[in-house]
Amino acid sequence: MLLDAAREAAAEAVGCRPDELVFTSSGTRAVHTGVAGALAGRHRIGRHLIVSAVEHSSVLHAADAHEAGGGSVTQVGVDRKGRVTPESYAGALRPDTALACLQSANHEVGTVQPVAEVAALCRDAGVPLLVDAAQSLGWGPVEGDWSVLAASAHKWGGPSGVGLLVVRKGVRFAPQGPADERESGRAAGFENLPAIVAAAASLRAVRAAAEQEAVLLRELTERIRVRVPQSVPDVEVVGDPERRLPGIVTFSCLYVDGETLLHELDREGFSVSSGSSCTSSTLTPSHVLKAMGVLSEGNVRVSLPMGTAEEDVERFLAVLPGAVAGVREKLGAPAVAATVQRDVLVVDALGKRCPIPVIELAKVIGDVPVGGTVRVLSDDEAARLDIPAWCEMRGQEYVGEEPADRGSAYTVRRVS
Amino acid sequence: MLLDAAREAAAEAVGCRPDELVFTSSGTRAVHTGVAGALAGRHRIGRHLIVSAVEHSSVLHAADAHEAGGGSVTQVGVDRKGRVTPESYAGALRPDTALACLQSANHEVGTVQPVAEVAALCRDAGVPLLVDAAQSLGWGPVEGDWSVLAASAHKWGGPSGVGLLVVRKGVRFAPQGPADERESGRAAGFENLPAIVAAAASLRAVRAAAEQEAVLLRELTERIRVRVPQSVPDVEVVGDPERRLPGIVTFSCLYVDGETLLHELDREGFSVSSGSSCTSSTLTPSHVLKAMGVLSEGNVRVSLPMGTAEEDVERFLAVLPGAVAGVREKLGAPAVAATVQRDVLVVDALGKRCPIPVIELAKVIGDVPVGGTVRVLSDDEAARLDIPAWCEMRGQEYVGEEPADRGSAYTVRRVS
Repeated sequence: MLLDAAREAAAEAVGCRPDELVFTSSGTRAVHTGVAGALAGRHRIGRHLIVSAVEHSSVLHAADAHEAGGGSVTQVGVDRKGRVTPESYAGALRPDTALACLQSANHEVGTVQPVAEVAALCRDAGVPLLVDAAQSLGWGPVEGDWSVLAASAHKWGGPSGVGLLVVRKGVRFAPQGPADERESGRAAGFENLPAIVAAAASLRAVRAAAEQEAVLLRELTERIRVRVPQSVPDVEVVGDPERRLPGIVTFSCLYVDGETLLHELDREGFSVSSGSSCTSSTLTPSHVLKAMGVLSEGNVRVSLPMGTAEEDVERFLAVLPGAVAGVREKLGAPAVAATVQRDVLVVDALGKRCPIPVIELAKVIGDVPVGGTVRVLSDDEAARLDIPAWCEMRGQEYVGEEPADRGSAYTVRRVS
Repeated sequence: MLLDAAREAAAEAVGCRPDELVFTSSGTRAVHTGVAGALAGRHRIGRHLIVSAVEHSSVLHAADAHEAGGGSVTQVGVDRKGRVTPESYAGALRPDTALACLQSANHEVGTVQPVAEVAALCRDAGVPLLVDAAQSLGWGPVEGDWSVLAASAHKWGGPSGVGLLVVRKGVRFAPQGPADERESGRAAGFENLPAIVAAAASLRAVRAAAEQEAVLLRELTERIRVRVPQSVPDVEVVGDPERRLPGIVTFSCLYVDGETLLHELDREGFSVSSGSSCTSSTLTPSHVLKAMGVLSEGNVRVSLPMGTAEEDVERFLAVLPGAVAGVREKLGAPAVAATVQRDVLVVDALGKRCPIPVIELAKVIGDVPVGGTVRVLSDDEAARLDIPAWCEMRGQEYVGEEPADRGSAYTVRRVS
């Protein structure tokens, strides 16, 4: 009875029938099961899968597994705001497309995706759309005529260990893996009843407050969006300024090591995230920032939970400029331009990690005359992204990249 | 740090290295991941899997999935006590055997399996053994040189939503499904940290009390084993009388509808389980009782949790005889023998469900002379199991089964 009641409450919040919804053991599991089941349900149509380039890693890993198993995958790109266009999904659809996936909103930069439009054109093509609604379900139901939906309770402030998987009636779905009689055969294992009840109750509670909280958080994140570039030089705020989640704001700081900045902010009592390569175990920048083509160095993601106090945001805004300046000073970031001028200048940044290659570039760009070039040698993966992004921010011309003895050579022409 | 501490505590209880143990979202998930990963790790050796016939459904479902994917499966049978022999595992091993699975103890009848012996002979053959330790891990570590182990926290009194999967160093293991960086890539999804911490803490607490509790519960279940057949006529206690779990005792009552008996006991405040066909949605008896070849009708499984009071067991023993008698009376079970004597008698029990076919047989067996036969027509799956079991209990001769126009005809010769 508790399970039924939780299912009804969750289904009401999603906007689906209770028998379309099962509880999984996590959002990741909901995505993996949803993608595999939807693909298997339509394997006679074909094995082509469409995902956006900025999906959560659980979706991209499911796509990798599909590709490793002989399927084909199209990644749809995004603009500099992190948003896909319905046209790019339309262009990716093929006669053998079994499934398309699109997040409701991005987990790193908060950009809201045009799910309803993409769902409509998928529907016209007879292709089901799986929506990863992990970021947005606490704020409201996902609009549009989607077919499969996945979400995660801890993302809306509920307990760990509960995900939602919704499969609309009429969608062909074949659960993979060993059979299990529980949760319509879509979520094996003993139901985690206390957590499921808490998940449904918290979703209901969060939704009751969502409208009012969204207004408050939107105002606070807008304050960060506007004031960080005013108080910190050389910052790029990323993500869509309008179509965005209320509580997430992300920016990148030129000439800053994300890891060091996070430590500085942590010491001040602020726990933030980063998509910089220097904060990840893989030494590559976040695939989201990469797909957007924006600066990834010194990246800071601020997630404001419901109920965040204005004072805390004000204190963050007060602390940030000093923290960034401190890191830049430590790294020897350029403050004044050098004076020696040569037509071509080579900067050897081999073995140096983000943000050093860009700092070295910035230090010497003033050393060549307008029209002259700087060639940066770097074997850091992040340079491939950050040197063009720096050019864009600085109005310099990015000429291109070529292989070098070690790493790559990136050529930049001084324009101004 | 909490996750590391929980992992160390759980590993100590299991008797493994912390880096060999991951937390999954359920025991079922641990079994599914363990079986699939171990099979994939050795797919070059072959695709043969060995399981016992009395494994938990999660293991059997994993075996079914393996078979559906083109693998081969050998089910090793058990004796009437529910126990496998090491010899039968030795006989099932083949050059292409990738994995063998054996439970540490049976979940329905409590019989403890010879895991150490089976592990040793698997080791000699170079075949990894996966142990489903769900039933016994709270009582102590699993002995022997096993390779993979799965368990479930809620079975030892811990929270739902946590399973353990242990893969010994050196065992070839290839996790299946989409990649995930968490839990060594063996358990996708956000870690359910509160539940994991509670699981490790409860395992430690349960273990501290296990030795003393085992003595108490063993005495209480022994009391049920001895006294139920004394106070209730026509009862078969099932499972190994010696090598068994401390807290489980199971018996079957002839001429009793398991569902009705469970309701009667529930009204008296006792929540018990049953492996009878009439209590399952599939209308077939438990695969465990079936594999053991024991009576499945009127089956009752009593699970005593740690801390069970002696008075509760005494009250159960006081209530049971009346409850069974009441059900038997309702069903018209035989009390006195009939008098008409014929050499061959046909009982039409078509369309009648367990335990009616056996009741009808018992009613008329006295109507044929010694040496005469009764032919029972039945289309109930449970009759195939329960008519031979009744013959064994009653010292009558079970002649055999043949197909009839509808269902089967079961022939029984009166011996005494």
